[in-house]
Amino acid sequence: MAERTYILEPIGIIHSDLTNRDAAPRQGYEGAPEAWVEVSSDVADGLLGIRGGDEIIVITWLDRAQRDILQVHPGRNPNAPLTGVFATRSPDRPNPVGLHRVKVLEIGGQRLKVGPIEALDGTPVIDIKPVLSRSDDG
Amino acid sequence: MAERTYILEPIGIIHSDLTNRDAAPRQGYEGAPEAWVEVSSDVADGLLGIRGGDEIIVITWLDRAQRDILQVHPGRNPNAPLTGVFATRSPDRPNPVGLHRVKVLEIGGQRLKVGPIEALDGTPVIDIKPVLSRSDDG
Repeated sequence: MAERTYILEPIGIIHSDLTNRDAAPRQGYEGAPEAWVEVSSDVADGLLGIRGGDEIIVITWLDRAQRDILQVHPGRNPNAPLTGVFATRSPDRPNPVGLHRVKVLEIGGQRLKVGPIEALDGTPVIDIKPVLSRSDDG
Repeated sequence: MAERTYILEPIGIIHSDLTNRDAAPRQGYEGAPEAWVEVSSDVADGLLGIRGGDEIIVITWLDRAQRDILQVHPGRNPNAPLTGVFATRSPDRPNPVGLHRVKVLEIGGQRLKVGPIEALDGTPVIDIKPVLSRSDDG
């Protein structure tokens, strides 16, 4: 069924003070810091129209995750019942895509300051999308 | 900066009556149909814990999109100002990741009936995540 594979080329990278997965908050609203998203110069034209104050979804590739894990105890709680990774936000999953809903705090050239965001320093960014409202669906 | 690339292996596929991109609604809430997500048998254990009525995010790879487009006129409106793809939900973008927030309507083995969803028939699925609430962050 899934014979075809696809190549992801990151569009950018996260610059953050967070460097350790075990110390990282599990979600952005759990005390995560601000960070910079640096977009590659070859795709920087794709940022046109993003403004300070916008709510965006930064989509990352969680490159330090394990891709061969299908079930976990959610919330890093060994007493929680074993749950399929597709029913959790565990970074460990076959395609470790991360979704981070953040606010744009500052824009400088091909860099966006965003937060709060729990992604680790050096995490590849694969896409950026606006948060949808039904009156403005881009 | 983005020297590394990553390999996406789809975890499943969309079965839908929507077969034509031009006829597809732009967003799920714009009159999109229900569809089946068929998950590959080798990752079906990852579905454990998903239940009928759950709100989930189906993440697709929009395999019919153009990856070399960085700016578009949003909303298929030629009079709209040219906008960077990262400020729009256009399927055309460097990594054509699709986000579809849907409800689980039915579960049958390794298939989930979901909707409404604007993804085309045959679209690869790369991940499934629960919608987060702050009291249940998986």
